[in-house]
Amino acid sequence: MKDTLVSRIKEVTLKDPILVEGLPGVGHVGKLVADHMVEELKAEKIIEIYSPHFPPQVMVKEDGTIKQVRNEIYAYHGKNDEPDLLILIGDYQSATNEGHYELCSIFLDIAQSFHVKRIYALGGYGTGQFVDKPNVMGAATSIELVEEMKQKDVVFHENEPGGGIIGVSGLLLGMGALRGIDAVCLMGVTSGYLVDPKAASEVLRILSGILGIEVSMQALEERAKEMEKIIGKLQEMERAQAPYEAVGGDEDLRYIG
Amino acid sequence: MKDTLVSRIKEVTLKDPILVEGLPGVGHVGKLVADHMVEELKAEKIIEIYSPHFPPQVMVKEDGTIKQVRNEIYAYHGKNDEPDLLILIGDYQSATNEGHYELCSIFLDIAQSFHVKRIYALGGYGTGQFVDKPNVMGAATSIELVEEMKQKDVVFHENEPGGGIIGVSGLLLGMGALRGIDAVCLMGVTSGYLVDPKAASEVLRILSGILGIEVSMQALEERAKEMEKIIGKLQEMERAQAPYEAVGGDEDLRYIG
Amino acid sequence: MKDTLVSRIKEVTLKDPILVEGLPGVGHVGKLVADHMVEELKAEKIIEIYSPHFPPQVMVKEDGTIKQVRNEIYAYHGKNDEPDLLILIGDYQSATNEGHYELCSIFLDIAQSFHVKRIYALGGYGTGQFVDKPNVMGAATSIELVEEMKQKDVVFHENEPGGGIIGVSGLLLGMGALRGIDAVCLMGVTSGYLVDPKAASEVLRILSGILGIEVSMQALEERAKEMEKIIGKLQEMERAQAPYEAVGGDEDLRYIG
Amino acid sequence: MKDTLVSRIKEVTLKDPILVEGLPGVGHVGKLVADHMVEELKAEKIIEIYSPHFPPQVMVKEDGTIKQVRNEIYAYHGKNDEPDLLILIGDYQSATNEGHYELCSIFLDIAQSFHVKRIYALGGYGTGQFVDKPNVMGAATSIELVEEMKQKDVVFHENEPGGGIIGVSGLLLGMGALRGIDAVCLMGVTSGYLVDPKAASEVLRILSGILGIEVSMQALEERAKEMEKIIGKLQEMERAQAPYEAVGGDEDLRYIG
Repeated sequence: MKDTLVSRIKEVTLKDPILVEGLPGVGHVGKLVADHMVEELKAEKIIEIYSPHFPPQVMVKEDGTIKQVRNEIYAYHGKNDEPDLLILIGDYQSATNEGHYELCSIFLDIAQSFHVKRIYALGGYGTGQFVDKPNVMGAATSIELVEEMKQKDVVFHENEPGGGIIGVSGLLLGMGALRGIDAVCLMGVTSGYLVDPKAASEVLRILSGILGIEVSMQALEERAKEMEKIIGKLQEMERAQAPYEAVGGDEDLRYIG
Repeated sequence: MKDTLVSRIKEVTLKDPILVEGLPGVGHVGKLVADHMVEELKAEKIIEIYSPHFPPQVMVKEDGTIKQVRNEIYAYHGKNDEPDLLILIGDYQSATNEGHYELCSIFLDIAQSFHVKRIYALGGYGTGQFVDKPNVMGAATSIELVEEMKQKDVVFHENEPGGGIIGVSGLLLGMGALRGIDAVCLMGVTSGYLVDPKAASEVLRILSGILGIEVSMQALEERAKEMEKIIGKLQEMERAQAPYEAVGGDEDLRYIG
Repeated sequence: MKDTLVSRIKEVTLKDPILVEGLPGVGHVGKLVADHMVEELKAEKIIEIYSPHFPPQVMVKEDGTIKQVRNEIYAYHGKNDEPDLLILIGDYQSATNEGHYELCSIFLDIAQSFHVKRIYALGGYGTGQFVDKPNVMGAATSIELVEEMKQKDVVFHENEPGGGIIGVSGLLLGMGALRGIDAVCLMGVTSGYLVDPKAASEVLRILSGILGIEVSMQALEERAKEMEKIIGKLQEMERAQAPYEAVGGDEDLRYIG
Repeated sequence: MKDTLVSRIKEVTLKDPILVEGLPGVGHVGKLVADHMVEELKAEKIIEIYSPHFPPQVMVKEDGTIKQVRNEIYAYHGKNDEPDLLILIGDYQSATNEGHYELCSIFLDIAQSFHVKRIYALGGYGTGQFVDKPNVMGAATSIELVEEMKQKDVVFHENEPGGGIIGVSGLLLGMGALRGIDAVCLMGVTSGYLVDPKAASEVLRILSGILGIEVSMQALEERAKEMEKIIGKLQEMERAQAPYEAVGGDEDLRYIG
């Protein structure tokens, strides 16, 4: 496997779907929201993506069986007036710069094959400090979109995020704009440590409002706790095995989740 | 040499062979067991694999001659009711993420050319602590296989290995499953420091039972000591030459064995 | 996007243009001068270059809209006796060795398509110490060019820069020479910390004299302050997000600007 | 330039030439000897090799002109009974694993185009301690060659170099052997710090004896001092510019010379 492998699990027809992306990142905010939506909306898996840009790893499930690390795309058929959705989730983002560009192009190719016209990329914005009142910061591909988001309680600060947006969420906007796709990044403001369910619930609240899709938040906190447990295990194991780990020194397994 | 080179040393015919993999890793458990099996079973080398994903290095043997670092596949013709085996051993695993994926695909291509239907990937599970009573932890590609292994004294814990399995052993399961090959990872629980012959002998005991192939364990301890000596030398030399080593900063030579 | 993408924004005809390069580097001297020239001369953007060798990132502008990181080439039509110019600026240099070579080849291909016969690569030379009286150090592709530059107050020291010139500025000279293009590197001597407007104004003064193009320096100091603010933000954010940043461990975001 | 570029400067005919390699490495022993031989024997340059696997850098010469970093092959026509030689020298070795394999294959392709049947790879063996009485350690592709070298005062220790040989010198033996070329590595035992002229003169003494080519050693010490000065400059500049250096974090510029 020298190239990324896109495996189509199921063929579906969707009407002008909106793409929601929530891969691991700062405070695992995006991943937590998107995983939660997949579960609550009972979205069905239609695509699996395997790539040499992911860590060379399998996850071990509670029953002792394994799962090759991957990204996945789920489809949700909107009820009544709800829009259709594609939801992109996964265990990892690319471990290399070049991989981010390659994978993002593949995601956009898939999106365009479904005639996606709008993308919501979910993430966290780490302040490194305790966050008192959670809010959601935005960035978007056009000034009209910025204005639209302001109406939806998304906050825009003149100088933030000063460092730009790194990883898939950033590239979906930047590369999406080059292809003429409208895209918004919704960043839950978070301390940035481990998994932040408060920032996630605020992102989910605002995204639900934007999409006009109601998603129960009851299980969100519990899901955050589970995710935190897994991440804790991963970090513990990394420490234990570090001196002999069968992996090159470049790996960054920090945002597993 | 921009691509991995598979050099077939000898053509053999095998009947539904089982693939056993033991490359360097945590506690050198997998490598120690597989190297030992090759010696004790007098398996014959049939394939050599050279790759730009291995460190750019030759090993120097005791007589002053050299050996290009590589992976090797040996064949064992089972006696009486014993199954045939392919045994994969080597000096190194890939030094890069992408290399792990590429090499694992090559290993699986070779396995499929021999109609391999089952793989045992051997490794160690590092606890970072002294291990009192050695046991063997498992992971497998299906729940049926998990149940079968439990019958053979392989231990499955609900939350371990929480960090998943990294490197060739992990990918042989994950990528193997995608190709419909049954695969099991047998991990000797080890402190994870240097070479652990106790963990190795426990893995060998259980694997022998599963395969129905008896392998003398007498030489195992001595072999572990030799391996430890070589690793010690490697580490010493690395320290001595570090400031001027003719190699990029990315190398991870830690799990040489 | 596995390959670098050259997007031509506008077709222009130029007469024997001179290429001026000012990408981020030591003390941001080159970037500051070239950005300033683009603004003051009202040069027009003709080419955008996107590459997987740049960090996987978008910049967020003050109004909340985003910009995919990239390199850009601007054209300036010389007035009266002034020469025509191509000015190469950007957010980043390549994050990898190989990318530097690839991007530099692309820059030279573009230059040759415009019949560029001379290149001025702008940069900084960091001394690590406070610089009392700024001056401009040079290096060039031929001894005739060295002599010509000495007439223009460019300083040549027998043993400096002893370490050679690294990155795009270096390769434009080295690879340019292999293609028969005359090229000069003008390095403002700087302490090397953050953005150095004094070194930049000295480089600009000398370059203006060489080109015979007058460029107002009034706004230079202010522009340096803005650039410093952005870099400060970037560094702050990097620190805050470091533990969970959705990017592999290889990235070097230090010379963003 | 995505690929390594082999530029043939001059066509020459050689009779069964021997390849001598001396690229930067431990104690700069190999580079010092090979550079010295090129000068003393007035060998002529026939090939230049440019590669994206070298650092993206130009060297600045004393007169202010620049030189793209590269590897070079020189030809020496043996006088009387002397053998013909190809001498491989350069500013750098590859900065990546994969590059080492690719460049070594290119070197061997060139060697085979000249019908090279024997290679001497020169290097240093760093002990990390002061070396009282210099000697030359060996490794070779066959036991016959080991015996032959023992007759020439080359030392073979049963357990050294325990860590194998890393970089071009190692691969020329390992990959050379796979192509059926006899190859010897001669390693001057050195403390490993900076440039070691004593280890170099011992390697040169033994190599001269083996080749039957007399090379004056008078200028060797002086050449070592010059090389040390350049390396000192490089290291100084690296320290000064480190915080903003326009190069990714992976680079290993330590063995420039």
